[in-house]
Amino acid sequence: MREPEAYSGQDGWTRGNGPEADVVLSTRVRLARNVADFHFPARLDDETRTRLQARMITAIDDAKLADDVRHEDLTQSNALHRQLLWERNLISREAMQSKGVRGVSWSPAKQFSIMTNEEDHLRIQALRAGLATAEALACALEVDTRLDARLEYSWSPQLGYLTACPTNVGTGLRISVMLHVPALVQTRQLDKVNKATAEVGLTVRGYHGEGSKALGDVIQISNQRTLGSSEAELLETVQTMLVKVVEYERLMREKLLAESKTSVEDHIWRSVGTLRHARKLAMEETLGLLSAVRLGINLKLLPTMGLDAMNELVVLSQPAHQQSLHGKAMDADDRDIARAAWLRDRFKPESN
Amino acid sequence: MREPEAYSGQDGWTRGNGPEADVVLSTRVRLARNVADFHFPARLDDETRTRLQARMITAIDDAKLADDVRHEDLTQSNALHRQLLWERNLISREAMQSKGVRGVSWSPAKQFSIMTNEEDHLRIQALRAGLATAEALACALEVDTRLDARLEYSWSPQLGYLTACPTNVGTGLRISVMLHVPALVQTRQLDKVNKATAEVGLTVRGYHGEGSKALGDVIQISNQRTLGSSEAELLETVQTMLVKVVEYERLMREKLLAESKTSVEDHIWRSVGTLRHARKLAMEETLGLLSAVRLGINLKLLPTMGLDAMNELVVLSQPAHQQSLHGKAMDADDRDIARAAWLRDRFKPESN
Repeated sequence: MREPEAYSGQDGWTRGNGPEADVVLSTRVRLARNVADFHFPARLDDETRTRLQARMITAIDDAKLADDVRHEDLTQSNALHRQLLWERNLISREAMQSKGVRGVSWSPAKQFSIMTNEEDHLRIQALRAGLATAEALACALEVDTRLDARLEYSWSPQLGYLTACPTNVGTGLRISVMLHVPALVQTRQLDKVNKATAEVGLTVRGYHGEGSKALGDVIQISNQRTLGSSEAELLETVQTMLVKVVEYERLMREKLLAESKTSVEDHIWRSVGTLRHARKLAMEETLGLLSAVRLGINLKLLPTMGLDAMNELVVLSQPAHQQSLHGKAMDADDRDIARAAWLRDRFKPESN
Repeated sequence: MREPEAYSGQDGWTRGNGPEADVVLSTRVRLARNVADFHFPARLDDETRTRLQARMITAIDDAKLADDVRHEDLTQSNALHRQLLWERNLISREAMQSKGVRGVSWSPAKQFSIMTNEEDHLRIQALRAGLATAEALACALEVDTRLDARLEYSWSPQLGYLTACPTNVGTGLRISVMLHVPALVQTRQLDKVNKATAEVGLTVRGYHGEGSKALGDVIQISNQRTLGSSEAELLETVQTMLVKVVEYERLMREKLLAESKTSVEDHIWRSVGTLRHARKLAMEETLGLLSAVRLGINLKLLPTMGLDAMNELVVLSQPAHQQSLHGKAMDADDRDIARAAWLRDRFKPESN
């Protein structure tokens, strides 16, 4: 089995060593920007879109954002490869699925990516391991400043940055933090978290943003609107709430351990047993099992396995990554069988 | 951990080497008999009951049924010990739970037991591994003949043997066969089996006879009435049906393997994983897991483990046996924890 070359676990944001890594998986900051005098991508004809795309790539190159910036023309990539980029959070579902001329540029070293001709002309993303909102925002804003000097942005003195979707108008900023909250899920506290975050204009979603289902006990907390607040205010709001949720999760973990240690151990060890023995594992179940293992590591109930290894397992378990690892296209059944075999190998007792 | 001395896996009927052992766990033949000129046990006063009990024990001794006949006065045994005998199928639930003077005599070598002052004065049981209806019946009838020579039975020329419950009047014979039918359960064929058996006057029940729930995929098929048929006719009816059910189970196993081998393997290996890793295991779940392992052995999907070892695991997993093995009384939670630890030890990868 081979690693997908460009997307191995070296991406810094999947590392397990970020701040508050026991609860926070990663932080993502995204800026939506559009180039003045062009329609938004959905209304651009192919020719103009191609011309704009070339102009943005040139601006990215001229900006010398990093030594290792790579460009990928998503129109040329096959579907499996685009899914790989999506599973790694380098591109959005929209960039993966839509049809027109579009691309992504990214730097593994500086951990940013720039989608071009997505919903907006530019989507600048900075990804970090752990809770690193300020650092990620600084990174995204630096990329933004350098591109601003080379591309005239669509901007209004009253509204700020103009975007395809009204919810992004203003700062165009979305800060999203991915948290692993098994104790909040088990103690049924997610409703409280949803309520508290809604009160300050934040929203809670699942792993890939879809729905509110906490697959693998992972939730994503992000700001909903960007208009009417400065970047600093949004950062402050998100960061304050996140610190609270992290503390709450830790408290519930202690409570679970104090009140039902055997049940917690039972759940964690059964999950290890399934990972070591199952012959078929669908993605959804896998996320639940890996969640239990991660909790076991954090509660020191399982022998040491690095959290970065755990993050990598989650990323590599995904459908496109599994197909890439096994070097062939597979239907869902075959993927479940291949995933189980791969996880058995990763979890075999000798290797712990 | 120690084995309960008198009830170790040496009892022949738990052996895995009987006829049709891939499907049939054990055969039990029971004869209900009463001594003439005494009321049925429920209507006997203590004094008479004690006197009758002594007379029956003397008859059992005089009959020289086997070299290793043991007597146990169930009035003197503690509840845990009686439960142990019940879990081993040496006594009935009634003999375990009722209050009056009563006992059990049994021979490990010849694999019979005689309950005295149960629902009837005498309940003669012969137990055998596998499908061995004729052999078990012969054993029970031999015990019966020898006791008959020493105790005058309550008998009517019109009705046959008279018993406390009308359903046992006639031959007083019940033939019960315990089958492991995971494939019939999984392919939802049990209703068909229920219907077919009912048509010939047989009935299907669960492991300990209660309800119709097939705990651990085990069912018990037995004749319902004893009046109006000879012993030979009842034997023929049971045997003929049993051969059909055994064949049907084998057919469904082949079907499962042919149509969904990976799912079968997945189920079996996950069960092994749970047995190797769980920290709490209730009896009901344990029976399901052990059922999967037994199926895996029979389908040659698991490395060899003797079927007799499997039978022993089922018996020893039961609540009273677990308490005996661990040498202390335990509540349900503690038993589940102890059972899981004990099974982890039995299933650890090294020992397979």
